[in-house]
Amino acid sequence: MRNWLLPEYIEDVLPSEALRIEKMRRRVLDLLLVHGYHYVIPPLLEYVESLLSGSGSDMDLRMFKVLDQLSGRMMGLRADITPQTARIDAHLLNAKGVTRLCYASSVLHTVPCEVTRTREPFQIGAELYGHAGLESDLEIQRLMLKCLMISGIDKIHLDLGHVAIFRSLIRDTGVLPEFEVDLYNVLQTKDTAALKELLSTGLDKRLDRHTRDALMLLPELYGDKKILIEARKMLPGYPEIENALHQLTVIEDELKSYVNTITFDLADLRGYHYHTGMVFAAYVQESANAIALGGRYDEIGKVFGRARPATGFSMDLRELSRLTRLEDCPKAILAPYKRDDEALDKTMERLRAEGHIVITDLPGNEIEEDPACYDKKLIFHNGVWEVVDI
Amino acid sequence: MRNWLLPEYIEDVLPSEALRIEKMRRRVLDLLLVHGYHYVIPPLLEYVESLLSGSGSDMDLRMFKVLDQLSGRMMGLRADITPQTARIDAHLLNAKGVTRLCYASSVLHTVPCEVTRTREPFQIGAELYGHAGLESDLEIQRLMLKCLMISGIDKIHLDLGHVAIFRSLIRDTGVLPEFEVDLYNVLQTKDTAALKELLSTGLDKRLDRHTRDALMLLPELYGDKKILIEARKMLPGYPEIENALHQLTVIEDELKSYVNTITFDLADLRGYHYHTGMVFAAYVQESANAIALGGRYDEIGKVFGRARPATGFSMDLRELSRLTRLEDCPKAILAPYKRDDEALDKTMERLRAEGHIVITDLPGNEIEEDPACYDKKLIFHNGVWEVVDI
Repeated sequence: MRNWLLPEYIEDVLPSEALRIEKMRRRVLDLLLVHGYHYVIPPLLEYVESLLSGSGSDMDLRMFKVLDQLSGRMMGLRADITPQTARIDAHLLNAKGVTRLCYASSVLHTVPCEVTRTREPFQIGAELYGHAGLESDLEIQRLMLKCLMISGIDKIHLDLGHVAIFRSLIRDTGVLPEFEVDLYNVLQTKDTAALKELLSTGLDKRLDRHTRDALMLLPELYGDKKILIEARKMLPGYPEIENALHQLTVIEDELKSYVNTITFDLADLRGYHYHTGMVFAAYVQESANAIALGGRYDEIGKVFGRARPATGFSMDLRELSRLTRLEDCPKAILAPYKRDDEALDKTMERLRAEGHIVITDLPGNEIEEDPACYDKKLIFHNGVWEVVDI
Repeated sequence: MRNWLLPEYIEDVLPSEALRIEKMRRRVLDLLLVHGYHYVIPPLLEYVESLLSGSGSDMDLRMFKVLDQLSGRMMGLRADITPQTARIDAHLLNAKGVTRLCYASSVLHTVPCEVTRTREPFQIGAELYGHAGLESDLEIQRLMLKCLMISGIDKIHLDLGHVAIFRSLIRDTGVLPEFEVDLYNVLQTKDTAALKELLSTGLDKRLDRHTRDALMLLPELYGDKKILIEARKMLPGYPEIENALHQLTVIEDELKSYVNTITFDLADLRGYHYHTGMVFAAYVQESANAIALGGRYDEIGKVFGRARPATGFSMDLRELSRLTRLEDCPKAILAPYKRDDEALDKTMERLRAEGHIVITDLPGNEIEEDPACYDKKLIFHNGVWEVVDI
């Protein structure tokens, strides 16, 4: 019945799960607030051009579009809140120093993307604008790990990459954009056979042997911190590569006490069109997909007329809630229906103010919704209303 | 700039207002929860037919539609959460007795509707299913008033109507549906001249003189409780009308201590296609539009295969937040950036756990976002980290 009524990958969230998501939402949002991240609520709808600013064509395909009958222009339903916060930072807040923003709202996807099994993820996250140094990467990654821990997730595995390595390898080589896309695709899937073929078919002879060798190495540079030493030995000594490897080494040292394991993947180019520096993703054993991810994206503000250094993370609260224990439905106190009984009304209000759930037993209602939800009732005894077990 | 970037009637909610909305959202939702209303999160998107079940053509025009590329069917972006909760009650929970549900999420409208100045209201509300008596109307209306009060709204004006009066007048008269729509439109706008013309042009002779007289009376039956006595004298003595007038009299008596003023409007047919019994709306002096509204809609579940008595209310938290005082931006404590200073880290975590906002002053950040947001800082003094005024 549920499938018949709702579109695929679209679901109702029913009471016990909704309550769990709400509790998690509050816990995470409160944590972001006490870290100085200002809460913003960007709209569900914007003009398509604004939403696609700085993002790739995959975002375009993932976004539902509707006609704005007031302007005749196309609007998109946001598929990601990050570009919206970048717009807010660039235009609305327009601060000179560091700006910290956070958000917690639904996004919509035309097809379910690999990270989530739903077309309506509940995206919660934080973005830090105006700081280019490693300290802000560290702040954001630590914050992501704290958010996961406060949500009841432990034994986190952190996977780190750095798109500056690939960028610096192909920079100044003059490769065609189509070839760059092909390279990106084979690296992302770690398809070394295809990579070898691509580099040898002579599709683009502008790459010298050193660069080709370095690109062939990338898919193998995957593992614990030992691969950073290996990368330093094997990859060209460009300053960007040195710097990227140094940053990854520092982050490993700073975050190892927060997580179970840390690995590096130098061929990880997730969000390449978008990211400019360190990228990271958190995993747990129970889920094949990343449960939280983020990275540095210094260029995004440029399309809004104001390029600002930026780093941030986000996670899907719906997916996350599936990985945590379902709490029991809180039990309620059943109160009889009485008209004009001031003492009863006051007792009920007091109990509710203390956080108890008090439900009026409406007259004529023979069958109550779920007896498992009640364990106490209000009775009039010795001149006062008191709570007793059922 | 803001208008240039975003579509009309679509807005970003910036930090101080977002925080106010968030606080209000929690306060209202917690109040609904302790009254035994279960929180549900219906999806933003559903098949059009499902969203339009039981609602009129106005809802159809107000709803954005997108193609579901997975099924080839049309999906709508919900313009109202109430039909979704009715579907959840009818199909998913399928309880025999009373079911209480609440929700708090965004809805989207193709054009701004009169109640709100936005195309993206934040709808929060409660619905009670499975009880047809006046006691549930009373519970819902009291709850609405409590929600408004906890949001900081006072001096509430309550306006009550009852669509059963109009329904019973034209029932069994055999009027054509087109004529019923015309009648509905002129009654709703209180256009007595047009009403007179409509009733006299002979467009439909099936209405007897008594019915015509009664219909002519409706637009004048507006005012305080005295009009209920007048209505009892002047309107036909059908049991449905007697019952409606009795219900309104009881409600007035029960709610008068909660509100500033109560008026009645027997020509108020708002949501006529949808509502079946008592309808109500709350107003304040500062706003021309209703700030909260609701009513009884016993028929809605029928299209889902299970007609259940139902009553509920909803309000737009964005609109409501405009009517309340903006709280000051909470001040933060500025902490210096130190690597590997365990004492500092612990102090910061303790302060955050106590609810203080603690922000790290990232190195190289000369200009902080807004000095008005800081009033304290952490300094190392006599061997301990302590908070001092700036």
